[in-house]
Amino acid sequence: MARSFVLGILLTLIAFRPGTRQSVPSTLNLMPVPRVLSLGEGRLRLDSSFTVALTGYHDARLGRAVVRVMDRLSRRTALTFSPSPVPDSSAHLVIAAAAAGQAIQTETEDESYTLDVEPARAALTAPTVVGALRGLETLLQLVASDSAGFYLPAVHVEDAPRFPWRGLLVDAGRHFEPVEVIERTLDGMAEVKLNVLHWHLSDDQGFRVESLRYPLLQGKGSDGLFYTQAQIRAVVAYARDRGIRVVPEFDMPGHATSWFVGYPRYASGTGPYAIVRTWGVFDPTFDPTRESVYLFIDRFIGEMAALFPDPYWHIGGDEVNGVEWDANPRIRAFRRLHHLADNAALQVYFNQRLSRILTQHGKRMVGWDEILNPDLPATAVVQSWRGVEYLPATVRSGHRAILSAPYYLDHMDSAEDHYYFDPLPDTLGLSPEEAARVLGGEACMWGEHVGPETIDSRIWPRLAAVAEKLWSPASVRDVHDMYRRLAATSLRLGEVGLRHQEHSARLLHLEVGNGPDFQTMMALLAVSQPVTFGQRNRMEEGMTQQTPLTRLVDAARPDPPARWASLTLIERLLADSGRTPAIADTLRAMFTAWRGLPAAVHAAAVRAPLAGDGVPVADALGRVAAVGFAALDRVQGRTPATVAWQDSARATLDSATGPHGLLRLVVVDPVRWLVEVAPIRQ
Amino acid sequence: MARSFVLGILLTLIAFRPGTRQSVPSTLNLMPVPRVLSLGEGRLRLDSSFTVALTGYHDARLGRAVVRVMDRLSRRTALTFSPSPVPDSSAHLVIAAAAAGQAIQTETEDESYTLDVEPARAALTAPTVVGALRGLETLLQLVASDSAGFYLPAVHVEDAPRFPWRGLLVDAGRHFEPVEVIERTLDGMAEVKLNVLHWHLSDDQGFRVESLRYPLLQGKGSDGLFYTQAQIRAVVAYARDRGIRVVPEFDMPGHATSWFVGYPRYASGTGPYAIVRTWGVFDPTFDPTRESVYLFIDRFIGEMAALFPDPYWHIGGDEVNGVEWDANPRIRAFRRLHHLADNAALQVYFNQRLSRILTQHGKRMVGWDEILNPDLPATAVVQSWRGVEYLPATVRSGHRAILSAPYYLDHMDSAEDHYYFDPLPDTLGLSPEEAARVLGGEACMWGEHVGPETIDSRIWPRLAAVAEKLWSPASVRDVHDMYRRLAATSLRLGEVGLRHQEHSARLLHLEVGNGPDFQTMMALLAVSQPVTFGQRNRMEEGMTQQTPLTRLVDAARPDPPARWASLTLIERLLADSGRTPAIADTLRAMFTAWRGLPAAVHAAAVRAPLAGDGVPVADALGRVAAVGFAALDRVQGRTPATVAWQDSARATLDSATGPHGLLRLVVVDPVRWLVEVAPIRQ
Repeated sequence: MARSFVLGILLTLIAFRPGTRQSVPSTLNLMPVPRVLSLGEGRLRLDSSFTVALTGYHDARLGRAVVRVMDRLSRRTALTFSPSPVPDSSAHLVIAAAAAGQAIQTETEDESYTLDVEPARAALTAPTVVGALRGLETLLQLVASDSAGFYLPAVHVEDAPRFPWRGLLVDAGRHFEPVEVIERTLDGMAEVKLNVLHWHLSDDQGFRVESLRYPLLQGKGSDGLFYTQAQIRAVVAYARDRGIRVVPEFDMPGHATSWFVGYPRYASGTGPYAIVRTWGVFDPTFDPTRESVYLFIDRFIGEMAALFPDPYWHIGGDEVNGVEWDANPRIRAFRRLHHLADNAALQVYFNQRLSRILTQHGKRMVGWDEILNPDLPATAVVQSWRGVEYLPATVRSGHRAILSAPYYLDHMDSAEDHYYFDPLPDTLGLSPEEAARVLGGEACMWGEHVGPETIDSRIWPRLAAVAEKLWSPASVRDVHDMYRRLAATSLRLGEVGLRHQEHSARLLHLEVGNGPDFQTMMALLAVSQPVTFGQRNRMEEGMTQQTPLTRLVDAARPDPPARWASLTLIERLLADSGRTPAIADTLRAMFTAWRGLPAAVHAAAVRAPLAGDGVPVADALGRVAAVGFAALDRVQGRTPATVAWQDSARATLDSATGPHGLLRLVVVDPVRWLVEVAPIRQ
Repeated sequence: MARSFVLGILLTLIAFRPGTRQSVPSTLNLMPVPRVLSLGEGRLRLDSSFTVALTGYHDARLGRAVVRVMDRLSRRTALTFSPSPVPDSSAHLVIAAAAAGQAIQTETEDESYTLDVEPARAALTAPTVVGALRGLETLLQLVASDSAGFYLPAVHVEDAPRFPWRGLLVDAGRHFEPVEVIERTLDGMAEVKLNVLHWHLSDDQGFRVESLRYPLLQGKGSDGLFYTQAQIRAVVAYARDRGIRVVPEFDMPGHATSWFVGYPRYASGTGPYAIVRTWGVFDPTFDPTRESVYLFIDRFIGEMAALFPDPYWHIGGDEVNGVEWDANPRIRAFRRLHHLADNAALQVYFNQRLSRILTQHGKRMVGWDEILNPDLPATAVVQSWRGVEYLPATVRSGHRAILSAPYYLDHMDSAEDHYYFDPLPDTLGLSPEEAARVLGGEACMWGEHVGPETIDSRIWPRLAAVAEKLWSPASVRDVHDMYRRLAATSLRLGEVGLRHQEHSARLLHLEVGNGPDFQTMMALLAVSQPVTFGQRNRMEEGMTQQTPLTRLVDAARPDPPARWASLTLIERLLADSGRTPAIADTLRAMFTAWRGLPAAVHAAAVRAPLAGDGVPVADALGRVAAVGFAALDRVQGRTPATVAWQDSARATLDSATGPHGLLRLVVVDPVRWLVEVAPIRQ
């Protein structure tokens, strides 16, 4: 995410220039937007007589999905429906799937569906059960209400995904995430039609799967925080029920310290090894020169292959620093003997061995883009994390590709930032065959700075914006409409138990209580967000795996709604040239509230130590408020704007975004906009 | 809970009369209040160097408890401590337990402890690990903060419980509660020093335990919602780690329909049987005349005894309506043959057989107070649910007793209501031996109207008030101080994952979104509470086990803080005779906010159908606000009060509490108080 600050501002200004807003066909509150959507006439009313019939192929998976859907519909509407599907062709919703879909879902699964809602009934048809699952989520997203109650609007939807691989990486290695977190994440993914959980299960900081064959892996490498085999099976089944594949990642040969705590003999160094508590790139690396290593890996993968049915297997392969390889005379000798020019070549050798093992177990290799090499087996899929620019090299070399670089949720970028990046922009200049090798993308939720209590707030709702880039046609790219639908989507995601909506309140209750300080800090977090991943890494000295994630930065959310809302307010002010006094009044009220926060936050910090982290950002907000008042006066012509004032205001704002400690202000850009458009007296 | 409305008002007025407030020794934010508490001089500062040493007996249970406590302390303070206890006598906290405590905890376990905090170090000593667990919770409750950070105040605490049996009944029969709900409930119970989870595991509406011997129990009686034996073992271990016993209840001979879905041959009727979906007393009853029934029960208890190590076994025994017994000629003949005068006598016969079976399995019987009978085995413990008046009869007959009647959380009474009832009031006139037979009490969370998403909000924080009645000396009864500490306790309970604090927000986000309607409905729920259990049973026609618990009444919380806060405000107004204008100003601002709510709620109901339930209670609030303004004018002497005005105001208020649909206003009493004290012009 290398977009410069200045570019960001320019894009913001362009996006908001009145009159340039893209004309958007009706998208209702659907997210991702379907391929074809047309509104009909009338409404299908929902009441307790609402029934569902399965008239086509149906199986237990579809049956359970219908029960879940009816349960969500019931909870949302407080209507009590008949608890199970009825075999009644006069039902209000008729679901006709043609077939089960693949026994083991792959990237070639047909996920298409057609949904027709008419005032008397709705019909969902799909070639597979997975397509029907996607259509059922669309149906739930269509539910609306008016003064007469709940209804489905008449629509015709024809839908299918743009990309077949639409994933989320969850890093359970650095901070363990309990099964209930994984399961509610899967529910959320299903809501926005994602289909791959990329489960990062081992890293320097933890080995998270129970091995019966090599019990010291979890026994010494996990602090007791690992998934049992029964839990793995349950998660895989839970995911399949929702049309989601589970691709495990066991990172090797690097990022592998936790393996060696119990089994130091497979490492390239001499050990002993201990679980790593900090973040970064570490030396411990598998020894690619020993046959015993490959035997170990073969047996391990053999055991795990019984748990993870997906045809793909992620080997990691990233950030191998070569320190242990260079330090080991036997490995240096091996490199010479085999004419391996460097450590990259040695890693290719390792990957070729690994690839053969995977093939024997019926698995296809996926790895991070460091594995790309002329000698990489053609079947390997390469996941680009270092930049979009790695994508063309991958597909031109004949490999298939998954794009992650612009979709790192841990970077704490805005939904807009992610949404800006098309996974397959024309600018790449790919041929149709090359473009077809781009399977899709994955958002990445790396675990350094998130734990079970914060992960929902870091994944959601921003992941929905990424999901849309991967499902919807490339033409769906209006940011205004995205944010409108994201707000509705965010609420719906709460239905399946995700906790992002109440996240800040929950942590602030613990940090500052529930008196006036709570309101103060809620107001501050409404306009603040965490610093970027890199900033936090640099600034939070001594942070380890044991550092509690209960500071103010943890209570804050990336891209809080007030960012977009305040930009929109400025846009409205400028669009009607100040003819509507209510808009300026709203802005003044907003600035007034900001102006009052520094004193309130200072006072809160005296009573509640954890509020202290908010003092610098509150002080900055006070300065932004002062500039806001001055700029508004000048935009409205009450006070003449001068170049000197504008320079001073810019300087104030330049420093206001932050970081201020571990927080950044999100409302500097709208005020900057006011400053820039104020007419200067020559 | 038979306190009349008028009595309630009088008590309120008395409790609030200035000058009569009881003088309370410093209780800090401790809940329950310890037996002896004296403040020392100075503060023990908490920073990342804080260490713990175990110098006495210690075992894995105590070790895990210390890890949990340090983790909670770390999350609360955002300090990173050394992750495990250090064997260092110079530690900041020295824990010295003398012994492990009972291998299977009973009501005779020693739970006492002594805690001394001095500026340089703290010492916790206890005769058992369980006592140390109690002391650790006190330690966590002592943590406070000032502008320099977190600290423990210097104190001397000597503590032990007033009653040895302090429980919570959780009804998993009517609505299933997943293991994570049970576990976080246990964490909350440990925080307030409760020691018995009474787990109601079977009822007409569901059989919730996996039996391997009789798999049709859960197979046909649970809708698939049951605890596996592995889960039961995990919960029992989780509870033991926290010094909490698990007493299972398998209700018999009545409340037993779910048993008979799979095994109709043990019932008194002819069947077939189906899981009951509604609430009340139903006919299906074990057949007490068949030997096969006792063989079945014997084998079942034999299987379950391996899962539940507690020496007590709750047989239920309540609400046997005798319909099946009267209808069955063979049972009538059996009654005559054995000279059993009536069905009560037949139930005694059943209980005697059951008692012998329990004895053979090493279990002592507990039952609801219907089981009390001259022929009841002397070892049986009787749990009084129908009224305090059943308690004396129990203990005078030589049985031991547990009191639950005043502590029914599902009744939706206030914490104050529960707190008002001493478990062993002098007025009972018991001898010391009789009084000693009162083992304690249990709060009851019956499951008709609660599910996993609402149960936290129904149990907490009110249970903490009941817990205090059972732990603290009888002299601890100041309601003002209780509510002050309850607020702090409620926040701390959020630390272990309980969701009551954010409950209304979470459900309202789903019901009305997160725009202005959310603020409107939050304001309404701040002054509203659910109707009583009986009212909801009568008014929500057609409610079943499948009815979604997502209406406005479910988002509301019993006894919201605004009730006590508004009473306190009126008290302060009257205490200083209106000399502080700010108090009256605050009241006027409060009434102004109330006055605005009806229009806002009406508007919300148009947009969000589930907000519609709030319209009647909002309208009533508007009327209360009008009375409030008028009464305040009269109390302040701005307008003369007349008898006619007062009569009219009283009439308005009499109808304002409600119920209004499924909601009641909680802020009528404070306004009534203003009306009553307004000086009448003669």
